[in-house]
Amino acid sequence: MKIRNSIVVLAAMVLLAVNVCAQTPIRANAERMESRIKALSQIGLNDNGGSDRVAYTDYDKQGREYIIELMKNAGLQVRIDTAANIIGRRKGKFDDRKPIVFGSHIDTVPNGGAYDGCVGVIGAIEVIELLNENKITTDGPLEVIVFTDEEGGLTGSRASAGDLGPEALTVTNNSGRAIEEGIRFLGGDPGRLAEAARKEGDIKAYLELHIEQGGVLESKGLNIGVVEGIVGIEWWEVTIEGFANHAGTTPMKGRRDAVLAGARFALMVNEVVNSYGGTQVGTVGKFIAEPGAPNVIPGKVTLSLELRDLSAEKIFRMYNAIEKRAIVIGSETGTEITFKHLDVGALPAITDEKIKSKIEESAKRLGLTYQKMPSGAGHDAQDMANIAPVGMIFVPSRGGISHSPKEFTSAEDMANGASVLVNAILAMDKGSN
Amino acid sequence: MKIRNSIVVLAAMVLLAVNVCAQTPIRANAERMESRIKALSQIGLNDNGGSDRVAYTDYDKQGREYIIELMKNAGLQVRIDTAANIIGRRKGKFDDRKPIVFGSHIDTVPNGGAYDGCVGVIGAIEVIELLNENKITTDGPLEVIVFTDEEGGLTGSRASAGDLGPEALTVTNNSGRAIEEGIRFLGGDPGRLAEAARKEGDIKAYLELHIEQGGVLESKGLNIGVVEGIVGIEWWEVTIEGFANHAGTTPMKGRRDAVLAGARFALMVNEVVNSYGGTQVGTVGKFIAEPGAPNVIPGKVTLSLELRDLSAEKIFRMYNAIEKRAIVIGSETGTEITFKHLDVGALPAITDEKIKSKIEESAKRLGLTYQKMPSGAGHDAQDMANIAPVGMIFVPSRGGISHSPKEFTSAEDMANGASVLVNAILAMDKGSN
Repeated sequence: MKIRNSIVVLAAMVLLAVNVCAQTPIRANAERMESRIKALSQIGLNDNGGSDRVAYTDYDKQGREYIIELMKNAGLQVRIDTAANIIGRRKGKFDDRKPIVFGSHIDTVPNGGAYDGCVGVIGAIEVIELLNENKITTDGPLEVIVFTDEEGGLTGSRASAGDLGPEALTVTNNSGRAIEEGIRFLGGDPGRLAEAARKEGDIKAYLELHIEQGGVLESKGLNIGVVEGIVGIEWWEVTIEGFANHAGTTPMKGRRDAVLAGARFALMVNEVVNSYGGTQVGTVGKFIAEPGAPNVIPGKVTLSLELRDLSAEKIFRMYNAIEKRAIVIGSETGTEITFKHLDVGALPAITDEKIKSKIEESAKRLGLTYQKMPSGAGHDAQDMANIAPVGMIFVPSRGGISHSPKEFTSAEDMANGASVLVNAILAMDKGSN
Repeated sequence: MKIRNSIVVLAAMVLLAVNVCAQTPIRANAERMESRIKALSQIGLNDNGGSDRVAYTDYDKQGREYIIELMKNAGLQVRIDTAANIIGRRKGKFDDRKPIVFGSHIDTVPNGGAYDGCVGVIGAIEVIELLNENKITTDGPLEVIVFTDEEGGLTGSRASAGDLGPEALTVTNNSGRAIEEGIRFLGGDPGRLAEAARKEGDIKAYLELHIEQGGVLESKGLNIGVVEGIVGIEWWEVTIEGFANHAGTTPMKGRRDAVLAGARFALMVNEVVNSYGGTQVGTVGKFIAEPGAPNVIPGKVTLSLELRDLSAEKIFRMYNAIEKRAIVIGSETGTEITFKHLDVGALPAITDEKIKSKIEESAKRLGLTYQKMPSGAGHDAQDMANIAPVGMIFVPSRGGISHSPKEFTSAEDMANGASVLVNAILAMDKGSN
């Protein structure tokens, strides 16, 4: 009996080992994912071929209904939390364990694309489909999550992280609805947002599959980006005061031309940012010259300075260099340059080391090429990083284009991402809880 | 009898010679001019201390009524021509001679100043007052002219020069009225504009006293500017097409940032214009970045290029150099730079050599300091140059400021200008007709 028992245990252990390590990794169904992405993109499609599924619109609601149906058909137990996040739960063998949560969002910017957010949601549902097809029950429970209003300020994930304050609720998004009204419209209850907040430590891990929204993977011919973190973002409004005067009667020498000072400023920012090694970026995206008439020397320029990096310290190091050089530009152009730090930044959110290795291992087992990279864009994962270990998987964006009707990710790339996601989840599920 | 007659003739000749050459030059009354400038500035005064006497408004009409009364009180025979120009005539001894015409305008830009145009009109009336006080009747007739709507496109002087076409009449100025309606409102007849046109050769000379609208005279401590000509103006709209993309996900290297290209363009224009000797100016006054969000790499910049000089050839020489260097900037920044020449320019208008010397001589006789200089701004004189020899007299603008409530010229400077004007007119009156 003892020997027989031992053999049974041993056999079970071998099966388990085969299941976890040696088994051919599960692969996502590219056709299924693409047909679902296409079906979703029909909801809110505009004449430009763009998606107008802005959060809190009727199209958003219709898109969510489509997703809820997919989730229910895949056997998930679906609920809407008070922030109107859609959460679909799949039981684990040990259902009181902390869940692994994964998902993204389906709302778009006005005239946006079909892939931003949607690939992560369809990919998360694909994970469930694959587990069902492979008759796999995970040890711990799984949760697919569709966050409310990502594009309007990460509304749903901020609520999940307990970080959606009352002042945010009064902001109106591109739907024309205030966020409070919008959450209610989608079935949430903005008066009880605290109930949507997850406690730190309650979630085993949060994973998000997303399109890169940049051109790095495509240009290097890689399949997968293993996200090292979501960059911190800092914004400044920069005002350059010169002196507006008649462009015909004021000689070149006596001018205090704010556009010339602004031009030097923009080029200087580019120079400073490029002078450091690494993946930091810096942008002057807004540039408003006043009065802005062809026959008046511009007396004022208001411009934006945005700096992003995985290290907050590096962002402020660059800023200090920019500020120092701006003083020289001001004195050489007879203008006064002032900086106003705007309170809309985000701290860098670093992804979890263990999750990153699981993602890398999955990509390797699937025979996919990959590299580590920062996420230059903001994502729901950055809020979730405040309460749980997070990881993100990027798939290529054609031409690096996003937030545009031209946004495109191939069915194969989407499936690669979902394949990495499912295998990483399975590997993590077996890890210590 | 013969000897007695000869003595009388001789005595008369001596008196004449004394009158023309050796007599102390006539000097304008600074207090009278200033009190009239102040009275005029009360009409349309706004809360900023600026003048809102925009052409075709009620304030414009009231201002014109004040001026007409001054003209009538000074003994002028006043008429309104079909372009609503106010013309006040003073008979000459030989009244069929060609008139010497002098004046300016009293309409302002919105929130403009009290001196632009007005000094020329009050100065022209001062000339008549001085001739009256000194009991001088000129040989030829004199005409004081107040042109309609200078600020809205030199409307009145274009009509005088026979150059106000029907398409100009449909343009709406800052009063909200179309020019056609405005001319009618002021007592003109837009259906009979041809009657306002003066024939080439019908006017002996056109003279205009004006504030400099720049800071050259003030900075050099000079009293009078002898205008060499009114600069030609050429405008281009420049479009820079880059590629708008996510400011977070697009590495610094792959960017096609239209603001960076536009910045290099603006600095290059400044460099090219400064590389020539002379008084030419070049300005990038408009600079519009699109989409203009802090988190989007600007995909497009639309900017204005304005070049001014007394030589049209030099303007286009500068333009060619700018165009050549723009090609390099475009290729180095991955942007496409295109130029559109706008049909709103003006050819240079050169002032008459003889009139310039009379102005110089007058200044000299009055003990005033002066220099020759271009007018960087447009004036009614540039239209009049198409049909008559013209001359312009500049007086200092404090701080070089104009088109602003801060516009200021001292009573002494205004009087200096009118003194030069009256003595130049007297000298020209004696010249051959």
